[in-house]
Amino acid sequence: MVEKVKNAIQDHYPEDFAWCYGCGRLNEAGHHFRTVWQGENTLTIYTPKPEHMALPGFVYGGLIASLIDCHGTGSAAIALHQKNGHEVGDGSEPPRFVTASLKVDFVKPTPHGVPLKAIGTIQEIHPKKWKVDTEVYAEDTLCARGEVIAVVMPNTFMKKD
Amino acid sequence: MVEKVKNAIQDHYPEDFAWCYGCGRLNEAGHHFRTVWQGENTLTIYTPKPEHMALPGFVYGGLIASLIDCHGTGSAAIALHQKNGHEVGDGSEPPRFVTASLKVDFVKPTPHGVPLKAIGTIQEIHPKKWKVDTEVYAEDTLCARGEVIAVVMPNTFMKKD
Repeated sequence: MVEKVKNAIQDHYPEDFAWCYGCGRLNEAGHHFRTVWQGENTLTIYTPKPEHMALPGFVYGGLIASLIDCHGTGSAAIALHQKNGHEVGDGSEPPRFVTASLKVDFVKPTPHGVPLKAIGTIQEIHPKKWKVDTEVYAEDTLCARGEVIAVVMPNTFMKKD
Repeated sequence: MVEKVKNAIQDHYPEDFAWCYGCGRLNEAGHHFRTVWQGENTLTIYTPKPEHMALPGFVYGGLIASLIDCHGTGSAAIALHQKNGHEVGDGSEPPRFVTASLKVDFVKPTPHGVPLKAIGTIQEIHPKKWKVDTEVYAEDTLCARGEVIAVVMPNTFMKKD
């Protein structure tokens, strides 16, 4: 049994930016990925649902890509928020990132039925552009490696025309 | 209104391999991506569901990554099936691929509410390893580019221990 992490960055996204299918707390149908510091790394734990299979017994790669994606933007938000002098949950709104690019190497078939742990290593490339390298483990087995280039959300996401 | 494509490769996957959350016809909760030839390219059309948003008005990147992923494996299956002397729907079982790696560049925010078209260009790297470059369009706007390295499903996917 995995304990639910407390005080994830996604718990504090402004309401307008909390609708993401992957990690938005207000998206009822979504995955609700939640990301926290773990030492100098970041951590997102998620247990795939029964339907999230590639084949019976193995996790769907698109779900793993989604986990790496939101873990990446969440990790970048955590890191920039800290750089800005804040702590998650101190009442200030964290920055919101979007994904510029996503890479996933599927190292091994990922067994279904156990929690997946995404562990991120964060690097600042530019004040508005961060790289997050992620390893996804099923129990102690490394199943996928990912890289996300996350950028502070541009104004183009504000226009819906 | 987009007409449903006929005779997609996923319609003919063997039953044991038709459970993928992205493209398995037997996975009731899944996306049911379906891929066909379109001239020398491949095509998958999908209209995201209301919940598949990054923000209201924009499509979730993980859904786009999932589309590129299954479009890639489906495109590789179509191409190898043809190389093997078959046509989709001729009664023979197509090969089944898995994703070795996935890359997505998010070129523009992807508007929600219109069908997405994934258009693939296929290249054989090795008889069991194919590269599929994909462009994802929302109407006439290129929103994402992807690359999938797809490999014929290895035996490790047959073991559920």
